[in-house]
Amino acid sequence: MRVAIQGVEGSFHDLASHHYFGKSYSPVEYGTFQDVFDDVIAGKVDYGIVAIENSLYGSINQVYDLLLANDLWINGEIYLRIKHCLIGLPGSSIKGIREVYSHPVALAQCKDFLQGGFSHVAQHAHDDTAGSVEDIKKWGDPSKAAIASEEAAKLHGLKILKRSVETHQQNYTRFIVLSRKPVVPTDAGKTSFVITQLWNSSDVRAGSLHRALGCFAKRGINLSKIESRPVIGRAWHYIFYMDFDAGLNDPKAQEALQELDGLGAKVRILGSYTPGVHIN
Amino acid sequence: MRVAIQGVEGSFHDLASHHYFGKSYSPVEYGTFQDVFDDVIAGKVDYGIVAIENSLYGSINQVYDLLLANDLWINGEIYLRIKHCLIGLPGSSIKGIREVYSHPVALAQCKDFLQGGFSHVAQHAHDDTAGSVEDIKKWGDPSKAAIASEEAAKLHGLKILKRSVETHQQNYTRFIVLSRKPVVPTDAGKTSFVITQLWNSSDVRAGSLHRALGCFAKRGINLSKIESRPVIGRAWHYIFYMDFDAGLNDPKAQEALQELDGLGAKVRILGSYTPGVHIN
Repeated sequence: MRVAIQGVEGSFHDLASHHYFGKSYSPVEYGTFQDVFDDVIAGKVDYGIVAIENSLYGSINQVYDLLLANDLWINGEIYLRIKHCLIGLPGSSIKGIREVYSHPVALAQCKDFLQGGFSHVAQHAHDDTAGSVEDIKKWGDPSKAAIASEEAAKLHGLKILKRSVETHQQNYTRFIVLSRKPVVPTDAGKTSFVITQLWNSSDVRAGSLHRALGCFAKRGINLSKIESRPVIGRAWHYIFYMDFDAGLNDPKAQEALQELDGLGAKVRILGSYTPGVHIN
Repeated sequence: MRVAIQGVEGSFHDLASHHYFGKSYSPVEYGTFQDVFDDVIAGKVDYGIVAIENSLYGSINQVYDLLLANDLWINGEIYLRIKHCLIGLPGSSIKGIREVYSHPVALAQCKDFLQGGFSHVAQHAHDDTAGSVEDIKKWGDPSKAAIASEEAAKLHGLKILKRSVETHQQNYTRFIVLSRKPVVPTDAGKTSFVITQLWNSSDVRAGSLHRALGCFAKRGINLSKIESRPVIGRAWHYIFYMDFDAGLNDPKAQEALQELDGLGAKVRILGSYTPGVHIN
């Protein structure tokens, strides 16, 4: 199973894929989310996996934009607890660290630790958490450390100087699995879709979103996510990404989507899949 | 009128403030949004101005988080058309440019230009658009250019090598003006608020957002914005930031907010102000 990941071995994308696909997983590393989408579309890999949301940071807008721009299907999801470690060379000690490297979001998630007794340390942004561990090893400077997963430290034989340096423990990232072909499993319990246009006429704007949500509320279908994004080229017009807690094969869900269509909304289904587990 | 801006003279925050406050405006420069909030709260400046949303990029999450964490009032807003120029030294020519410096969002907004005939040029991220113009002047290297406003070029006596290098012309940034004291002008036509909790019980989750929007829809009050953000420390719980097109002194708006309160939602008003003009 060839799976496109953003980042390198030991990255959180890599860990999420290991948990999702199990032993059959074989990673193919990419630098950007766009590259992951491109090669799933081109058929060079079986699946792609991308982070879409973090419980502290919020939505990753770029991934929502890529879902709209590309014709791929959300095949599944998994939630991974993000545990950050401070990682140095085997001979390093926490007192000797003068510079820390990691992805900017990871640095932000360890703010309390970094601003506490560690405020004399310079922070440097890196493209990737696990990639910064590779660099620490390559540079061989005991005053430099990385922030990344425990697995990244083990992979490169480096030393964990401190575990759980993240500020909040309720730090989970939701990853989605992308495929070319739309498949709805029999146990699908979650559906993602996007409303690209609420209705044609703008004089019903006052209640348009309210009426759209009503299609689901009146059938007791829970919306677990609503995210607005600007429409490029039309200032202050929005599209809405939503997730609801039912599969596309559920008659209630089909009725709700039909009612929405009848109201004149333009809707595209992004995927319908088994709700993801939380990996702690 | 001492106004805290993020960035330096010639930045888009500075231009927005000039348009909003007119001749009485005197800028006080800050490095971060947090610093702007801090000194408005401390009373060291009369107002602060911060970008909150861009028509291409979407919401600036950090500013939404700061609005929740700090007790400030949205006193007004203004929309500024973002026009980017390629700026070099007086002796530079567009053909000789090998490196371009600007804020990462500005570089992203000029993607088509930079990836077109300009793809041989290295891009470098800078904290600030106008600050990159200062650096170009300081460095004195004719192969380096900045992307920033026309005003930043004029301020430093540099040369505009090319105008309107932005990909989309529908590129507006919405700026909000912050004050310590809550004031509702008689011509207030817009109100911003945040729902920090929909209701106490989670078994009504299916329709809770729908019912919240209904308080406004049934009174014909348009919601011009809805933005969800994660609740820190409670994974997959959200708060909702909303704007509606009525002042807080409008009886209909008061009724809608009372109904929302009666449903058990926790609401905080962030400001009520005169709807902003668009500066082209």
